[in-house]
Amino acid sequence: MKAKITLKDIARELEVSISTVSKALKNSEEISRDTKEKIQAFAKLYNYKPNNIAISLKNKRTKNIGVVIPAIVHHFFTTVIRGIEKYANAKGYNVIVCLSEESFDKEVINMEMLANGSIDGFIMSLSSETQQKEDYNHLKEVTEQGIPVVLFDRITNEIDCDKVVIDDQLGAYMATKKLIEQGRKKIALITTDDYLSVSKARTEGYRKALLESELEINEARILKLSTMEVDEKSIRNFFNTQEVDAVLCVNEIFTVFSMRLVQEKGLSIPKDISFIGFTDGLLSKYANPSLTVVAQHGEKMGEISAQMLIDKVESDDGEERFQTKILEPTLVIRDSTFN
Amino acid sequence: MKAKITLKDIARELEVSISTVSKALKNSEEISRDTKEKIQAFAKLYNYKPNNIAISLKNKRTKNIGVVIPAIVHHFFTTVIRGIEKYANAKGYNVIVCLSEESFDKEVINMEMLANGSIDGFIMSLSSETQQKEDYNHLKEVTEQGIPVVLFDRITNEIDCDKVVIDDQLGAYMATKKLIEQGRKKIALITTDDYLSVSKARTEGYRKALLESELEINEARILKLSTMEVDEKSIRNFFNTQEVDAVLCVNEIFTVFSMRLVQEKGLSIPKDISFIGFTDGLLSKYANPSLTVVAQHGEKMGEISAQMLIDKVESDDGEERFQTKILEPTLVIRDSTFN
Repeated sequence: MKAKITLKDIARELEVSISTVSKALKNSEEISRDTKEKIQAFAKLYNYKPNNIAISLKNKRTKNIGVVIPAIVHHFFTTVIRGIEKYANAKGYNVIVCLSEESFDKEVINMEMLANGSIDGFIMSLSSETQQKEDYNHLKEVTEQGIPVVLFDRITNEIDCDKVVIDDQLGAYMATKKLIEQGRKKIALITTDDYLSVSKARTEGYRKALLESELEINEARILKLSTMEVDEKSIRNFFNTQEVDAVLCVNEIFTVFSMRLVQEKGLSIPKDISFIGFTDGLLSKYANPSLTVVAQHGEKMGEISAQMLIDKVESDDGEERFQTKILEPTLVIRDSTFN
Repeated sequence: MKAKITLKDIARELEVSISTVSKALKNSEEISRDTKEKIQAFAKLYNYKPNNIAISLKNKRTKNIGVVIPAIVHHFFTTVIRGIEKYANAKGYNVIVCLSEESFDKEVINMEMLANGSIDGFIMSLSSETQQKEDYNHLKEVTEQGIPVVLFDRITNEIDCDKVVIDDQLGAYMATKKLIEQGRKKIALITTDDYLSVSKARTEGYRKALLESELEINEARILKLSTMEVDEKSIRNFFNTQEVDAVLCVNEIFTVFSMRLVQEKGLSIPKDISFIGFTDGLLSKYANPSLTVVAQHGEKMGEISAQMLIDKVESDDGEERFQTKILEPTLVIRDSTFN
């Protein structure tokens, strides 16, 4: 039996990117006529069907849910998976987890593989590269075929589907307000470039709190890293050149690394400098001092995502109604700030 | 199209465990004749084939590798996945990760799902429940059908396949020796029950080092927890009743939690008490003080596992030759011990 040809196969064979193949098959104007013709001819020759991805037919229930997440190094995603599993298992569903590792190509490949009859629907958080490219054809393909998708945390307005997020702007706002209330004046933000939806919203919340309190927004105090990985050199350089009395970070790894840096300089936390991070994970709990955090309620988010997905999978209702659930973040006060 | 019936379906329908179904279909003497007959009749009626699990035929390459791991909260498994992805992607393979969450049932269900035509072979680390039950029928099923399997870290001698481990006994031995060299006399071990293969080997290494140095082995200084989860109450109770000057822990979460506990009691690390943990992960790196660890070389382990698996997948050699690769652990000295 000859395996069906996939986007990945076409891309490899014609030495173009998966994104190019996907766009060419959609007749996108971004792709040159020559390339489009070549790709379309090849796809026709090998009998590629754009709905390969949707081979999991609606009436053939697998009782499996596909989860595609960008990374597992961030404890947040671990907690979301736990929540998904909790709800899904109770309903008799099994959960299969794939990692895109922040790569657009891997996200597409994983979706193709899972949609090949293995699952009833997707729960996803977008890779940073997908958000950067703003290429959502692989998601459109799936939703157009009627396969339910729930997006959580890193979402896009380009796709009509159910979504679950926390109010990231509010989370950053609450954290920054707390630091201001405790008398901090030079509050830094360590985040990533704005293409990442959550970082953008958090940066807005930080700015809003400073503006409201009539504190100066000093752009030099906002460090935008290119990825969610710890860029040790940039963070080190930031603390060597900026004088700050509080720091808000968009993930816990940035925070604990920054705390170590200032402790090496002989500063005392929270006497000389306070820290708040996003995500209430193990690093935050067991850091020294333990970290004050914006809890993202990952487990809750996972449970709600699974509930929304399974409701759609089991619904006989042909009508399409999508909702976006916005959870409220909570500030968990520990020892990296005053109480 | 009617989906194929699975072990899980039979178990649910007859209200018995998956393990019972699996054993009954193998005609195991552990299962009563009555139950066996019922299960076998049901399986026949619904046309269950024990080799459902092996539907991914040898000649139908998917270029996908299935990875089944017990947990992602331990950074070690994150690093192994990174290594697997690195090697596999370079060879044009895609990696799909499933979590057994330390559950035997989930391990079986995930294997059934993946083996249903999605993958060319498995890379696995056994769930604690599987090691506790010593039930490996699901693995035998797969290997007997000629689907390549590589076991890493948590392995069993019951299955003939390629294996990759670090020398856990040596790792614990080296760590304990180091503590003894630094003048420590009352060295504690925080581990799990011996059913977990790695914990057993590490406990042996700890004992060996103490014996060699003619130090007393005080059983009260060995805390055996029932799982790899942090049992905060037992650890707290342990430090309240035992007077120790050094601690070796079998994972980094146990270690950082224990360090926090003794710091709360006002002890200074490493002046009053030293700590060494297994796994060189983020928690170890960013703890305060940073943690001296037995590095398990997870990424290397992942790369070797992927290489062994892909070699088997692509080999036309019908002969079965299996090897076990044993990696040497390394001691990474940081600030939770003297240098």
